[in-house]
Amino acid sequence: MARAQKRLRQELLKEKLQETPFLTDEELAVVLEVSVQTVRLDRLELGIPELRERTKQMAEEARTKLKAIASGEVIGELIDLELGKSGISVLSITPDMVFEKTKVVKGHYIFAQANSLALAVIDAPAAVTGVANIKFKMPAHVGEKLIAKAEVVKKRGNKYFIWVKTRNDAHELFRAKFIMASLES
Amino acid sequence: MARAQKRLRQELLKEKLQETPFLTDEELAVVLEVSVQTVRLDRLELGIPELRERTKQMAEEARTKLKAIASGEVIGELIDLELGKSGISVLSITPDMVFEKTKVVKGHYIFAQANSLALAVIDAPAAVTGVANIKFKMPAHVGEKLIAKAEVVKKRGNKYFIWVKTRNDAHELFRAKFIMASLES
Repeated sequence: MARAQKRLRQELLKEKLQETPFLTDEELAVVLEVSVQTVRLDRLELGIPELRERTKQMAEEARTKLKAIASGEVIGELIDLELGKSGISVLSITPDMVFEKTKVVKGHYIFAQANSLALAVIDAPAAVTGVANIKFKMPAHVGEKLIAKAEVVKKRGNKYFIWVKTRNDAHELFRAKFIMASLES
Repeated sequence: MARAQKRLRQELLKEKLQETPFLTDEELAVVLEVSVQTVRLDRLELGIPELRERTKQMAEEARTKLKAIASGEVIGELIDLELGKSGISVLSITPDMVFEKTKVVKGHYIFAQANSLALAVIDAPAAVTGVANIKFKMPAHVGEKLIAKAEVVKKRGNKYFIWVKTRNDAHELFRAKFIMASLES
């Protein structure tokens, strides 16, 4: 009985991490209603590394897939990439990224994260941005980690229609619809 | 007769520079169909400084008018500013601004120039970007000077509707429609 329970719990742990790979052990403990110690032991048994290591591995894997732009050109850290489909990046907001007066993150940093991520997901040797419709919904501030998710929603000829949504811990802050053109070169 | 001709030519020179303040003496000579030497003498007589000095003076004057963002936060050089109405900035494209593969200027530099200029023209102590619809029409490359012009087309409550058009010597490269919100603080 205890063994069956444990197997179930570990399955749930794997599932949760597949959905939301950036959960800390503390957050997993809350979600699974067990102690942090139990989460650690389960991870150990399952061979799942801790968050920092997990993120690093994902980032390395994602970088190797890049085609349309170079790895250093992605603004923020690329964490996940399915070429032609989707991508995730994380941008940590530092004091140099905010406006003096409002202490709000400069819009072009958020745009840069989204735009470079949209380029990153394109499955072609090169690409350029054509059109973007963007909306800043809430301001971001120093110390926040902005998670951008890009999704290819349509592909027509060499045109990619890509949506990017950016959020912090609590809220969606930004949305963009891009039309990018891949270049055959 | 020669004197009348000269007066006419100098009037035309002043007019041209009011329309297009960034014309070099060489370009003025072509436009006015006279020698470069003549342009220089005319400028001297009229007390109009050379292009570099002219630009510097305009930039200093523009900077003193800024309200919503700090001078160092304008991407590119702010050259002209009529608060609540319009603004012009110039961004020189350096090698660090282009993508490795395509040698095309990264979209977020062009966006940053336009976005910061749109904030600069707002006649309020602070403002944030709400919505932007942007179109990249042609790529920009190293060595080009991008001239962005912002114009407030409508103001409703604390919302500013601002259009920005960016061009190089030859073509319009970029257009953006912004809706910004001024903050009363």
